[in-house]
Amino acid sequence: MTLHHSNAFTETLALREIDWLDTDTMIEAVDQLMMSSTESDVQLLTETSHHIIGAGGKRVRPRLLLLSYLALGGTDIDYVLPVAASLELVHTASVVHDDINDHGVLRRGRPSINAKWGRTFALLTGDFLFTKVYELMADYSSVNRVFAVSTKALVEGETLQAAAVKEGNFTPDVYLRVIALKTAELFRASTLSGAILAGATPSQQDSLSEFGFKVGMAFQIMDDVLDITGNTEQLGKTAGLDLQQGKGFTNITDPTANDPMARIKTEMMKGDRLEQASAQANHFIESALEDLDGVPDSAPKDKLIELAHQVIDRTH
Amino acid sequence: MTLHHSNAFTETLALREIDWLDTDTMIEAVDQLMMSSTESDVQLLTETSHHIIGAGGKRVRPRLLLLSYLALGGTDIDYVLPVAASLELVHTASVVHDDINDHGVLRRGRPSINAKWGRTFALLTGDFLFTKVYELMADYSSVNRVFAVSTKALVEGETLQAAAVKEGNFTPDVYLRVIALKTAELFRASTLSGAILAGATPSQQDSLSEFGFKVGMAFQIMDDVLDITGNTEQLGKTAGLDLQQGKGFTNITDPTANDPMARIKTEMMKGDRLEQASAQANHFIESALEDLDGVPDSAPKDKLIELAHQVIDRTH
Repeated sequence: MTLHHSNAFTETLALREIDWLDTDTMIEAVDQLMMSSTESDVQLLTETSHHIIGAGGKRVRPRLLLLSYLALGGTDIDYVLPVAASLELVHTASVVHDDINDHGVLRRGRPSINAKWGRTFALLTGDFLFTKVYELMADYSSVNRVFAVSTKALVEGETLQAAAVKEGNFTPDVYLRVIALKTAELFRASTLSGAILAGATPSQQDSLSEFGFKVGMAFQIMDDVLDITGNTEQLGKTAGLDLQQGKGFTNITDPTANDPMARIKTEMMKGDRLEQASAQANHFIESALEDLDGVPDSAPKDKLIELAHQVIDRTH
Repeated sequence: MTLHHSNAFTETLALREIDWLDTDTMIEAVDQLMMSSTESDVQLLTETSHHIIGAGGKRVRPRLLLLSYLALGGTDIDYVLPVAASLELVHTASVVHDDINDHGVLRRGRPSINAKWGRTFALLTGDFLFTKVYELMADYSSVNRVFAVSTKALVEGETLQAAAVKEGNFTPDVYLRVIALKTAELFRASTLSGAILAGATPSQQDSLSEFGFKVGMAFQIMDDVLDITGNTEQLGKTAGLDLQQGKGFTNITDPTANDPMARIKTEMMKGDRLEQASAQANHFIESALEDLDGVPDSAPKDKLIELAHQVIDRTH
């Protein structure tokens, strides 16, 4: 099996002593691989892809994969880098398409591809990123099915959300199903893939699978809470885009009036619902941490625990 | 390896004597698999997917795969059905997204998904079909890379076309590069996958690869010729959509005025360019047929030859 991209990475960092527990170094490698693998003879696709990848992001999914892999005894980071990059590319493709549907104008502090290049190229860039995932994942038969299931779930979750909003039945139950599909399943794929690639036992795979899913649920709940309470500067995307003007937010740019999603989110501001949501996120993280009981103590495990805490403690 | 969908197929047709050289029977099986594999708990995705799959189509790509497989000695149709379905699903995903960008209102005699359900659900349906391909292909490591490369090429070709049209440099050279990427590479993947799965020699794989590519080039050239000369009834899609009104076409519905692509196609009507294009398609088919010289004579080979002829003889 030839891993061209890993070679490129190894060349780049060959002369530097690498501490694989330095998460930032790993993420730098993932970013480099995403950049190199999205170079296309069709220059426009290189530009649009590098625009969104270069904007950065939290890279939670690759972090979860890499730490799960290390926590379960994996040692060959080069081998798992393409999988880490693929997880982030699936997520990136989905946000590029989201910005078409939601008319998002800012993403990670930059103009969205939709805003800068228009709908046609945003649509094709999302497709391009999806196809790069096929390519990067072609050799990883052991985790391909895990990947496929979670990617399908992501699209199903987005669709369920759009359909429920349109039909006016976006209930709390539907909300939980939506975020399970559109976010938590890809988080599950991240940690489960790490465990599989590390050769973990079935029981450890189950534990990491549950851990990832619950962290994903908490992450999305907090993301929505922050979307409602945050502002453009903090989030680097069009915060409150979905909120109707004049509902008490002063930093809203380009609000979409009469958006049904806006009404739903405004609804969530009432009473103590945001506090309830935060409590629910906390509960998911507590339960997720229990799933790690069967994983031997190690530095990567500590970092996984730290990451889980960050999900609920973050302000952006 | 469990092939759930093939089981479903086997059950359905178990009591019936199957003549695997009956191409229609094979395509019926491919269609059934596409339908069953796009059933989703998110009902809307099932509806939109079945709408476009149920509209039928020429199914050229699965035909090429199945016949290539049989021509090179393959015997286990159940094994290759998911790959055949995946090829058609990649193509279907791309036409669903095309109809967003081109504002196509008719597709295969039915309203486009874009026209019937709106842009958001058309975009997500295309994404859903792409993700089903991941899932169907997860176990086929030997052809996954072939698939990945051709799918990436498809998106690159669509992007190159849109960029060239926008920038006003859609020259004949660019045209050939566009159709190679957006069509001929997936045709190549069809015949090459068939050869690989049949365990063909490297030389036979090369021959089938070239054959598929050239048939794809001829197919797309004829498609464009028919798009220019055809009418809505014959094509079942919005023929001449890209053509400006009043250029001698009477059956045009919903023409897009001032579309740069329209001007390009109108340009192609001048002089003997359409005749030149048809001659070029003929040339590709002649050359493709020579590529089959190294393939032993057989009934499936005869059908491959017949299919190649149909590509240039067709009127729709």
